[in-house]
Amino acid sequence: MDGSNATFSVTYRIRANSEQDARKQFDAVALEQSAEMPPDAIPGHLKKFTGNADAVRQLADSLFEADIQFPETIVDGDPVQFLNVLFGNCSLLPGVQISAVDAGYLAQLLPGPRLGIKGIRNLLNQPDRALSCTALKPVGMNSKELGTIAERFSAGGIDIIKDDHGLANQQTAPFEDRVRAVTEGIKISEDRTGKKTLYFPNITGSPREVTERYRLAAELGADGVLISPQLAGLSTLIDLRNMEPVLPIMAHPAFSGSFVIGELNGILPELYYGLIWRAFGADAVVYPNTGGRFAFSPETCEKINQNCRKKAASFRRSFPVPGGGINRNSIAGWVQKYGSDTIFLVGGSLYQHPGGIETAAAEFQQTLENYE
Amino acid sequence: MDGSNATFSVTYRIRANSEQDARKQFDAVALEQSAEMPPDAIPGHLKKFTGNADAVRQLADSLFEADIQFPETIVDGDPVQFLNVLFGNCSLLPGVQISAVDAGYLAQLLPGPRLGIKGIRNLLNQPDRALSCTALKPVGMNSKELGTIAERFSAGGIDIIKDDHGLANQQTAPFEDRVRAVTEGIKISEDRTGKKTLYFPNITGSPREVTERYRLAAELGADGVLISPQLAGLSTLIDLRNMEPVLPIMAHPAFSGSFVIGELNGILPELYYGLIWRAFGADAVVYPNTGGRFAFSPETCEKINQNCRKKAASFRRSFPVPGGGINRNSIAGWVQKYGSDTIFLVGGSLYQHPGGIETAAAEFQQTLENYE
Repeated sequence: MDGSNATFSVTYRIRANSEQDARKQFDAVALEQSAEMPPDAIPGHLKKFTGNADAVRQLADSLFEADIQFPETIVDGDPVQFLNVLFGNCSLLPGVQISAVDAGYLAQLLPGPRLGIKGIRNLLNQPDRALSCTALKPVGMNSKELGTIAERFSAGGIDIIKDDHGLANQQTAPFEDRVRAVTEGIKISEDRTGKKTLYFPNITGSPREVTERYRLAAELGADGVLISPQLAGLSTLIDLRNMEPVLPIMAHPAFSGSFVIGELNGILPELYYGLIWRAFGADAVVYPNTGGRFAFSPETCEKINQNCRKKAASFRRSFPVPGGGINRNSIAGWVQKYGSDTIFLVGGSLYQHPGGIETAAAEFQQTLENYE
Repeated sequence: MDGSNATFSVTYRIRANSEQDARKQFDAVALEQSAEMPPDAIPGHLKKFTGNADAVRQLADSLFEADIQFPETIVDGDPVQFLNVLFGNCSLLPGVQISAVDAGYLAQLLPGPRLGIKGIRNLLNQPDRALSCTALKPVGMNSKELGTIAERFSAGGIDIIKDDHGLANQQTAPFEDRVRAVTEGIKISEDRTGKKTLYFPNITGSPREVTERYRLAAELGADGVLISPQLAGLSTLIDLRNMEPVLPIMAHPAFSGSFVIGELNGILPELYYGLIWRAFGADAVVYPNTGGRFAFSPETCEKINQNCRKKAASFRRSFPVPGGGINRNSIAGWVQKYGSDTIFLVGGSLYQHPGGIETAAAEFQQTLENYE
């Protein structure tokens, strides 16, 4: 069969005492992630279905890196099986980290964003400048209150309002009620000011709920959706990717931290959020910004931004959405640092503005427009 | 509303320099996982929707533990939102680990196994002894070859045959073909020997594929299913839990390692596999056994076994399935250690038996029957 010998490469890092020891470990990972049995038990005609480690590179004291070549036939176009080959069993080995994945292969396997940066910009008629985003919160607030808050944020000109990722379908603000109240609240301001605000309700839930809520969100006039892929399952993104109408998908990192904050376990955050989530279809990727209460370094955040935006095979570009470390008074500095192809997510500190939410939103907008 | 003040507790561990510092961190986690905004920005009437940390306990030098009480209203019966409250954003904080969850609350929220230990025993007519399990592999083998291997394992008397978790829907052995070939292979041996063998094909995939493959598995005469919850999404288990006919669900830890192997990040493995996966409906829980190529200590494995089997609220008991560190020559020792309410998963070393698969399986069975 044509292409049956094609392979794709995944780059792994491990800790080892010597290059020889490293070699042994990479060979073990290559086997673990493919045949998962002792080499002498693999029938000869099936050896072509195993992974093979390329040359070992030393990165630092005791730290080694190697590309492992996997036959495409063991994934065979299945994105979930791809994740399994990538990091299924070896997630359980101490000290294995993935630092790179063949972007060309990803593009062959996965569709990437349907809208991406340009598509979201089109929805807002904002071709150039950085975008503002805030979250409706806290959990416990009823739909009417959330609708009023959304109205005021929109009156201040905010570009995107998302649900807090903790708003699910609680009695205090059931999904359908909430989406109705918030879209109505936003419409009141939009009609008055003429400035568009997009609303992304949180559709995270069981697979059935995710697709139901996506449909409902579209039906009730929401402009996009928020989903936490690690809670709903990364594979739900694939099913969403095929749904109509096309709504932008904003991915939230809830429940994904363990994959990205280990010193030498997991997947490098810039790869996971910036390339893999993008490949799975996230039009915008929320990540915990540096300098706040989370763990990422400034360099990691810059790399996430770069990976979301860079030319990568046939993928549309995704918006990086730094959040969690951004105060209303520090926005200007972050815009200067991260540039205009960024959605800035500011939550708590807008609610703390002495002049109220509308004023806070207007100042936020003004800051972004100053850098246009 | 009745019960509106009810709370559930989650126990967190963190590293801190002093009890005071620890207190501050626990308060921050309580807030992060509920309102997720500065306390002074939370309207007074909504303060009842925030988490609250109880007294801090010192466990060791710099290591502290505290129970955080969360209002049930912020979860409101939603299992996915429960995971979000448990570990959504705080998965991204360095050094936060969950050591316990209120089992009574879990039982109120989640159904637990539909069959459990007793139900799987009934399917095999084996009320007492430990059960044997092996995996069909490697990936690349065609359906006919897999069917022949299954026939031989069954001829040796093996109790359960599962697919390798890397068998998805590849052209080399497409799901439907494979399930048909393997069930037919097993039937040939069963008809000859009268000894029942259960077959659990791997249904891991996108949400749509998972439910389709579950139906297909049942239709084609498979006896149960294998799923990797962390690949498919833990929430897919909830949807499966409502499907007919009732098939036992064996959960595989692929892609879950980052949650459980961090020194002070994630969820204690005995809690995650032994109680949470059980609560989500896993009738049998595969985990990486100690002593092999994976990272768990003997104590951790014993605790996983205990949590799978112990009386926990209204949950049926789950079978622990140690795998990955068990060689065909070491089975006897493991049975003595782990006891009869265990499914022993032995893969690679059975394939290496000089006398062939059937002999290997028969010896495996004999070892378990000796301990009956």
